[in-house]
Amino acid sequence: MKRQLEPSNSVVPCPAVLVSVRGPDRPNIITLAWAANVCSEPPTVVVGIRPRRYSHGLVKEAGDFVVNIPSADLLEATKLCGTKSGRDMDKFAVSHLTAEPSTKVTSPMIKECPINIECKTKQVITLGSHDLFIAEVVAVHIDESVLDEKGNFDAAKAKLFAFLPLTGDYWALGEALRESPPAGSATTKRRGRR
Amino acid sequence: MKRQLEPSNSVVPCPAVLVSVRGPDRPNIITLAWAANVCSEPPTVVVGIRPRRYSHGLVKEAGDFVVNIPSADLLEATKLCGTKSGRDMDKFAVSHLTAEPSTKVTSPMIKECPINIECKTKQVITLGSHDLFIAEVVAVHIDESVLDEKGNFDAAKAKLFAFLPLTGDYWALGEALRESPPAGSATTKRRGRR
Repeated sequence: MKRQLEPSNSVVPCPAVLVSVRGPDRPNIITLAWAANVCSEPPTVVVGIRPRRYSHGLVKEAGDFVVNIPSADLLEATKLCGTKSGRDMDKFAVSHLTAEPSTKVTSPMIKECPINIECKTKQVITLGSHDLFIAEVVAVHIDESVLDEKGNFDAAKAKLFAFLPLTGDYWALGEALRESPPAGSATTKRRGRR
Repeated sequence: MKRQLEPSNSVVPCPAVLVSVRGPDRPNIITLAWAANVCSEPPTVVVGIRPRRYSHGLVKEAGDFVVNIPSADLLEATKLCGTKSGRDMDKFAVSHLTAEPSTKVTSPMIKECPINIECKTKQVITLGSHDLFIAEVVAVHIDESVLDEKGNFDAAKAKLFAFLPLTGDYWALGEALRESPPAGSATTKRRGRR
């Protein structure tokens, strides 16, 4: 039996990303769950930002931003940067995060995040409560601490987590899924690219 | 130390959704990881679909679609619907899934998915390898089997999972994250809406 809810944001799980952007006095950070890969070639991301948020104007002015993927160690910073305003505080300082120069964009990346995705804005579309920023990925950086011995990304080392808008909480990723694992096999073995 | 990669789709974790759409002869299903909530009011989702995919034309023709959230029990169907074409087979039949009528759109929903999100397309934007479909959420259905005793969504019951484009595999959600949990407390206790 199904229950019908009011129309709401029900796509789950969502990423929880820290978007860093340069500002007139100091760089800022905003946590966003309305974020996604949307196109493979050119690699393109979208983020949805409320016009009243301080970072909205900064991203428009900069014309670029960095999508930083936090590990679970940065949960407190993720929450703070999603609920406080950079108008009132230096979020890098308060969150004990470090701005480091990007290679292709003017906005800085967050050193403590294991993945940094440099993005150049291509289009801004007004949707309603949020504006949609469509941006091309121009560089990606991955910390060596989240790579395995072969140089491949190791999600377990990255301590990834997701946001669930239906309940408003954050969930850690568990294990890689394998169908019909042989008895006794490790369930965390990673599979090849599809 | 960070390593720079070629620009790629590196936002993680991603949802893995089954998009169902009506067709001229039979409904079809396509698995998409390029999908997200992007606006709260009106609730809006985006999906990125390659023009050469069979479902691309179906979604354009229908003007609507349903985003269905699978549980881990549907991993095999999720993989099949992402790699096979509905031009050649009835994916509902092959995946042992059931099309049931939606309430607000012409495309059917997938009965076996615990969450169904009915969407009406508002804009289609050409990006490159993928077109971006921007759609308004007009109805949401949740199976009672994934609600707790208070009627709230219970992510553990839904057996949610995510897709990681960096490695091409699927990961189960683990546990809800709590900062500084008291010793001995359950780590799965859910938190309130932010």
